[in-house]
Amino acid sequence: MEHVVSENTAQPVELLHGVEDRYGGVKVEMKDPLDYDVFVATLRASISQWRQQGKKGVWIKLPIELVNLVEAAVKEGFWYHHAEPTYLMLVYWIPESPNTIPANASHQVGVGLFVINDKKEMLVVQEKSGKFKGSGFWKFPTGVVNEGEDIREAAIREVKEETGIKTEFLEVLGFRQSHQVIFGKSDLFFLCILRPLSCDIKKQETEIEAAKWMPIEDYVAQSFVQKHQLAKSFADLCIAKINGSYAGFTPVPSPSAYSGKLFDLYLNSYDLNKSPASL
Amino acid sequence: MEHVVSENTAQPVELLHGVEDRYGGVKVEMKDPLDYDVFVATLRASISQWRQQGKKGVWIKLPIELVNLVEAAVKEGFWYHHAEPTYLMLVYWIPESPNTIPANASHQVGVGLFVINDKKEMLVVQEKSGKFKGSGFWKFPTGVVNEGEDIREAAIREVKEETGIKTEFLEVLGFRQSHQVIFGKSDLFFLCILRPLSCDIKKQETEIEAAKWMPIEDYVAQSFVQKHQLAKSFADLCIAKINGSYAGFTPVPSPSAYSGKLFDLYLNSYDLNKSPASL
Repeated sequence: MEHVVSENTAQPVELLHGVEDRYGGVKVEMKDPLDYDVFVATLRASISQWRQQGKKGVWIKLPIELVNLVEAAVKEGFWYHHAEPTYLMLVYWIPESPNTIPANASHQVGVGLFVINDKKEMLVVQEKSGKFKGSGFWKFPTGVVNEGEDIREAAIREVKEETGIKTEFLEVLGFRQSHQVIFGKSDLFFLCILRPLSCDIKKQETEIEAAKWMPIEDYVAQSFVQKHQLAKSFADLCIAKINGSYAGFTPVPSPSAYSGKLFDLYLNSYDLNKSPASL
Repeated sequence: MEHVVSENTAQPVELLHGVEDRYGGVKVEMKDPLDYDVFVATLRASISQWRQQGKKGVWIKLPIELVNLVEAAVKEGFWYHHAEPTYLMLVYWIPESPNTIPANASHQVGVGLFVINDKKEMLVVQEKSGKFKGSGFWKFPTGVVNEGEDIREAAIREVKEETGIKTEFLEVLGFRQSHQVIFGKSDLFFLCILRPLSCDIKKQETEIEAAKWMPIEDYVAQSFVQKHQLAKSFADLCIAKINGSYAGFTPVPSPSAYSGKLFDLYLNSYDLNKSPASL
């Protein structure tokens, strides 16, 4: 913190240490314990200074250990932006103009995993909980992509976790966007096809009731697949792929223009490779 | 709230009203103002009862008006799950077993908008802020998909907002996943192609410095596109599409198997339609 002399009290009042962002805002990351009243005085003095400096958005990141300061920030006009298990991010907008604070993450990402071997057998599971519990329906493995995890990594990980089968990622065959799925958030579900690199199933004990290789005809013949258009559409994509006539999107590592980090670009590489390269 | 008699004090202690979820958990939505100490007593009695009932996860949704209760919940062992401007969601795990609390949304979703007319002119803009400000680079319009918003709706909305041009959504040509983009979250960026339904540009004043139709050759010839592999890859997809030899994913409304709501399933409809339908 910096020390300044408050105009009102002539007492030294500390200011919060803010780091400027590229949108004219200030970010404060609180770390040390602070008394409620001291925090209020410090926050008021800091906002007053930022206002004079023409700052716009003010971000305060409060680790959960400093939960005693949340109420103070809200009473000074801050609101919640987002939270993770270890911290709460609060935000305040200084100018009169409408706020341009970016929204928090809006989507969760899931994968459906179509693993098929050379005998046209498909890897299927029954789960111990969830929507299909006790229904007798054999489903393809599914899972959630973690924050910071590549879709293809998540696909390989989930198959391995649920069934012990090692796989190679091939393509995204299609994807679905849906809304109000969890905590009001939207969902992107990627249907992926993978090639098995092993065949002996070792199912996960806590979540998986049963796992096996099933002829794809038997999978498709299940009444759930026949009755529900989305399940049928997913099966149609898989069949088209097996028949060799369907190009999905394959991941191509591509460097970010800014950081140079490699990120996966998914595209129809079959069509791209046969396409003339110039206009 | 329900009334029970506490074993310790023989005083009536109210219990929180919880709604059971399908994973053996309890959800509490706090609405009315409550004194800090009363909340603590109520929370303790409620958790004791839920523990006896074998409940697992406990969710408490606190509207921002009840910020005075956040500290109490954290001191009783709750942690932050997620937050939105109007509320904070806290969670607690009763059993000894490892918690299976689902993660919060992990991705933001963006769109890159390739709008091309019959003269092979592309709709390009220069922005008033951001990475390309002052660089002279003409970029395709981009934007963020809102929570609850369809990708194709967001695509049409962003082009209209930035340039006034009405469009018809055609295809997703490819998408990129990247990490640590905003607040530690990951990002999915969909490159979309749209057909313009109008031609007179009316640029947005606050964000857009300039907007125009540009021959696609001139767009591609820009040094940024030539120097950066990702920008070049995006341009290659667009050129392949214009040449008529590239199939992206088109949205097909498909009913959810559970709610019956229509959600967009994106797939290679060109290949699917020419594929034999059976195994």
